[in-house]
Amino acid sequence: MIITLKRGAEKKDVDAVINKIKKLKYLPHISKGKDVTIIGMIGERAEIHKEAFEALTAVEHISEIEKPYKLASRDFKKTNTIIKIGKLEIGSNKVVVMAGPCAVEAKGITIKAAQIVKACGASVLRGGAFKPRSSPYAFQGLSEKGLIILSEAKKQTGLAVVSEAMTIAEVALVAKYCDIIQIGARNVQNYDLLKAAGKQRKPVLLKRGMATTIKEFLLSAEYILSQGNYNVMLCERGIRTFEDSTRFTLDLNAVPVLKKVTHLPVIVDPSHGIGIREHVPAMAKAALACGADGLIIEVHPNPQEALSDGPQSLMPEQFEALMNDLKVLAKAIGRSI
Amino acid sequence: MIITLKRGAEKKDVDAVINKIKKLKYLPHISKGKDVTIIGMIGERAEIHKEAFEALTAVEHISEIEKPYKLASRDFKKTNTIIKIGKLEIGSNKVVVMAGPCAVEAKGITIKAAQIVKACGASVLRGGAFKPRSSPYAFQGLSEKGLIILSEAKKQTGLAVVSEAMTIAEVALVAKYCDIIQIGARNVQNYDLLKAAGKQRKPVLLKRGMATTIKEFLLSAEYILSQGNYNVMLCERGIRTFEDSTRFTLDLNAVPVLKKVTHLPVIVDPSHGIGIREHVPAMAKAALACGADGLIIEVHPNPQEALSDGPQSLMPEQFEALMNDLKVLAKAIGRSI
Amino acid sequence: MIITLKRGAEKKDVDAVINKIKKLKYLPHISKGKDVTIIGMIGERAEIHKEAFEALTAVEHISEIEKPYKLASRDFKKTNTIIKIGKLEIGSNKVVVMAGPCAVEAKGITIKAAQIVKACGASVLRGGAFKPRSSPYAFQGLSEKGLIILSEAKKQTGLAVVSEAMTIAEVALVAKYCDIIQIGARNVQNYDLLKAAGKQRKPVLLKRGMATTIKEFLLSAEYILSQGNYNVMLCERGIRTFEDSTRFTLDLNAVPVLKKVTHLPVIVDPSHGIGIREHVPAMAKAALACGADGLIIEVHPNPQEALSDGPQSLMPEQFEALMNDLKVLAKAIGRSI
Amino acid sequence: MIITLKRGAEKKDVDAVINKIKKLKYLPHISKGKDVTIIGMIGERAEIHKEAFEALTAVEHISEIEKPYKLASRDFKKTNTIIKIGKLEIGSNKVVVMAGPCAVEAKGITIKAAQIVKACGASVLRGGAFKPRSSPYAFQGLSEKGLIILSEAKKQTGLAVVSEAMTIAEVALVAKYCDIIQIGARNVQNYDLLKAAGKQRKPVLLKRGMATTIKEFLLSAEYILSQGNYNVMLCERGIRTFEDSTRFTLDLNAVPVLKKVTHLPVIVDPSHGIGIREHVPAMAKAALACGADGLIIEVHPNPQEALSDGPQSLMPEQFEALMNDLKVLAKAIGRSI
Repeated sequence: MIITLKRGAEKKDVDAVINKIKKLKYLPHISKGKDVTIIGMIGERAEIHKEAFEALTAVEHISEIEKPYKLASRDFKKTNTIIKIGKLEIGSNKVVVMAGPCAVEAKGITIKAAQIVKACGASVLRGGAFKPRSSPYAFQGLSEKGLIILSEAKKQTGLAVVSEAMTIAEVALVAKYCDIIQIGARNVQNYDLLKAAGKQRKPVLLKRGMATTIKEFLLSAEYILSQGNYNVMLCERGIRTFEDSTRFTLDLNAVPVLKKVTHLPVIVDPSHGIGIREHVPAMAKAALACGADGLIIEVHPNPQEALSDGPQSLMPEQFEALMNDLKVLAKAIGRSI
Repeated sequence: MIITLKRGAEKKDVDAVINKIKKLKYLPHISKGKDVTIIGMIGERAEIHKEAFEALTAVEHISEIEKPYKLASRDFKKTNTIIKIGKLEIGSNKVVVMAGPCAVEAKGITIKAAQIVKACGASVLRGGAFKPRSSPYAFQGLSEKGLIILSEAKKQTGLAVVSEAMTIAEVALVAKYCDIIQIGARNVQNYDLLKAAGKQRKPVLLKRGMATTIKEFLLSAEYILSQGNYNVMLCERGIRTFEDSTRFTLDLNAVPVLKKVTHLPVIVDPSHGIGIREHVPAMAKAALACGADGLIIEVHPNPQEALSDGPQSLMPEQFEALMNDLKVLAKAIGRSI
Repeated sequence: MIITLKRGAEKKDVDAVINKIKKLKYLPHISKGKDVTIIGMIGERAEIHKEAFEALTAVEHISEIEKPYKLASRDFKKTNTIIKIGKLEIGSNKVVVMAGPCAVEAKGITIKAAQIVKACGASVLRGGAFKPRSSPYAFQGLSEKGLIILSEAKKQTGLAVVSEAMTIAEVALVAKYCDIIQIGARNVQNYDLLKAAGKQRKPVLLKRGMATTIKEFLLSAEYILSQGNYNVMLCERGIRTFEDSTRFTLDLNAVPVLKKVTHLPVIVDPSHGIGIREHVPAMAKAALACGADGLIIEVHPNPQEALSDGPQSLMPEQFEALMNDLKVLAKAIGRSI
Repeated sequence: MIITLKRGAEKKDVDAVINKIKKLKYLPHISKGKDVTIIGMIGERAEIHKEAFEALTAVEHISEIEKPYKLASRDFKKTNTIIKIGKLEIGSNKVVVMAGPCAVEAKGITIKAAQIVKACGASVLRGGAFKPRSSPYAFQGLSEKGLIILSEAKKQTGLAVVSEAMTIAEVALVAKYCDIIQIGARNVQNYDLLKAAGKQRKPVLLKRGMATTIKEFLLSAEYILSQGNYNVMLCERGIRTFEDSTRFTLDLNAVPVLKKVTHLPVIVDPSHGIGIREHVPAMAKAALACGADGLIIEVHPNPQEALSDGPQSLMPEQFEALMNDLKVLAKAIGRSI
């Protein structure tokens, strides 16, 4: 990192900076300009000490040079991580589509949903058994009963299954029944949950929070990776901005940026991202075109009857049309679905 | 609009609301709940009076029902507006690509740029003669001399030309030499400039501001339309969010939202939107995939020497590769370039 | 809530809306305009069903009328909630100051910090034993050992103590040693943690997340209240915006807005909010002036040596000067410290 | 500025960076770490060349060290700028209150408003003759007729007068009748308007845009200063964030930050900032407490009848009560009103 000193900083305060650098076993690179002095502190994990230096009297500003994450970085691993679930590969040239209802509501409708999305070409079934709801009075999910339904749908269709865990205890439960554990946007900086997801071996789908910077997002992934679980996929699902004509602002800029700095697969959730059913297909296509390795899309056999997130769920026929479009598009960009 | 009254509002204050509605020749629709009373004031342009009602003592909250813009609305005109410039059509099934350097810097390099983008398939040359720069000490553009260079490039290549006007006086000047007048993001609510652009007849490319909601964006377009100039195209070019790994956050969500509510052509500027050269192609492809009618892209024969905005300008070979990709992609979605 | 129907909605789709309202035992209020029809569904907790209605074919838009939270609302409880901890009252006319180091680092320095803040007039000691850090490689706190140090500082100074819990298990642990359990910004929508905090009886300091709307913030409080714990204080601590010259944007607008809609005490954290040591006093004074019931401020006996968040911690002499200013200011607005 | 090079940059590309620095007559300071090389380019106005360097192949990232503005900086002028208008001083220890209706609507009511605000202790009358309205169909102001009314109010009360100019032509007109020319939030980066305001000698009140960073805000002020007009005051008036319970988010953090980096007076507009009448007094007090040199507040003899911005205008009795509170508060912080 680069430490810019205050103009007219006293010698003893400047020395305090230099001594702190040396004490931490880094080499200070000092550049004196006419008015401003800067000190480079370059080396592995120097950025971890940023706050400690910011507190020093002589310091005006610190710029980070090295990335603060390591295992998630493409500098650490050059080739794309490919996550394997049976024969399914996530992160390869084949784009993965995960689809299904927002929440698992009942066995019949869930299995019907699974059959529909499978028939259209999806390879993973999504569905929430534990639902993070902003209101305590809203439907909170079927819990383990929902997971059992998902595993039944998996058995009947052969689809892999992804579902969200919101607590440390739920991580084990979701891992028991499902193939992928989702960590939701609201828990992206729930560090103990991330560690728990890192300590087990099922792949993790980590959703970006609505105000999470890309750097923070990768640091959250680093929490999982640093526990030994390298099967992490990153999911952009919309950030919060001033715009109020959409539910969130799906940030597709994150896709090429992430693909450059990390080797982890990048998934996009256009359903929550834009939050309006009729605009989900357009955003799904755009996500594919800018390099996403997968999509996670809400589909409901009858969205008008869904207990949660209905307004953004695609009808079966809309999903079928979208999948047809995506297949053509994937081919045009040299990928497949 | 729907006026929700305060709980326990006094009768005289409620009557003030009702009388104001009647005075404005609307019919009040009153619904009394157990705790809350709401009054509907429905009809053309009712929303214009929103602030006046918000000031009334009995009013708790007002929800808008009707769109406050009219001429820009698809309710007003169902079919897509197609802007014609010679043989060129903007807003049709054929996607238009506008490309060129950020600023017009010298004749030779501008003409070279024009030849390059034309050879790759662009149909409009972009280039700024008047440059909005955040610092007064930065290069401010060549002014009329720049416009003359653009018109020379137009003559030599047959490309149409777009350039920005920042003042009322510059509107006439740009109109004299160019085919399309650009109103920049920083002037999206410079209403007198919008009116001036509306009073002449050259097509206008209106850029969304970095904190402009889609509703405000359409109201700004309405300023131009209401002066009699119907040839307006809307350009998404990145909004300002908390994310700092990209220069702006290109908001592609705006594309399907705009295409639904307005008949005006929608253009996307991936260069300013993401602001990082290597990520411009990904965002250009995404823009095409989600329904943009055109793209405006910075290309510079030698970006390393550009006087402004160099970091986001594509090299000629990058632009050529992008155009090839876009052509395949356009075909896959049933359009052409 | 107010349901606006799409123009030209078919009768069967409109009937679906009306029937759904009736099925839920609400009375539909129908207002037909020339072009638009709106239906009012007014009554307790109508807003919970918003999403279900948004999914219906005929629905264009829904405006909420009733607040979706209940126990947190001033409509539910008119008078200010005053939280009692021994003789200490939070939410009364006397403004409470909580102060201390960001993290508990060692016994000696923590007790020294406690003595300093007590001498200056603080009545609660703050200090983190479990630290939410964006990087897995940064100092994570002393855990229970830190809580023991805090309880020792409490014994020696008589200060009440507040510390953060990040997991359900930590809630019990913090409750064992401390007087107030803090739920941090990153866990504001960690609903199971909120429920756990609601099931025990120690007061809770709930921090607003960096992208949490005021409505969502109150719904998160509602999670705690709905479990039977009414001793909740709300803490504004900075939101995330585009501005990068401060660490966060302390949103003081939230103070008068919250004081109006809820009876719960409102605390402000200027230290994390602006994140720059020299500007913390200005924001602390502003928070007091606009109606905050308390302040939580980072103070470190030697910020230059702090292991975390040093750059925003006040030096002892700065805190003393601030407390003197706050006492004069409190008197001027008819309160005391 | 500090230029970080890409890992593994080729020698010829690194040399291109060094040569460009030398060509611009700066001295390159090169620091090689194990993996990363950084080059310092330190000296006056180095930052102006940032974009040109960002375009170079070897460059990974550039950090700014020097502030890009000069005349606005406290490094350039250490003491507070005090703007004199007759006997009135803005920027001194005495806090200035500007008050009046949003728009000038009619002579009688404007003079009545002037008398009310004068009687309460305001020293400047505010009122818009040219109104920037988001809809072309809304009331656009009385134009010169409004300015004449303001000058009449000035004559009758002795108040100084501030009003907004939106075009270059209006600058001269407002300067003719008023004491202070306001540049509104929507024109904060209308650079030709800023230059026009800089070329005349009446003081300028420059409002921050809704997405303007503090650095950009000061660069906009620099446009005015660089033309020779040093009488510029900066006005914070609310930024755009995700929060929707207030009209804008008044960013009081800007007050201490601006007071540190610039010598120009800082004014706060709580009326537009929070946009809700009942919360304006709380934010006005907070602005005073955190160091604002002045306040600009909307007051209307009868807000319920105001043609624009009524919902945020204070009633006369509310303004009177606020002024009484502000006087006590100013005294408590060692200032006066």
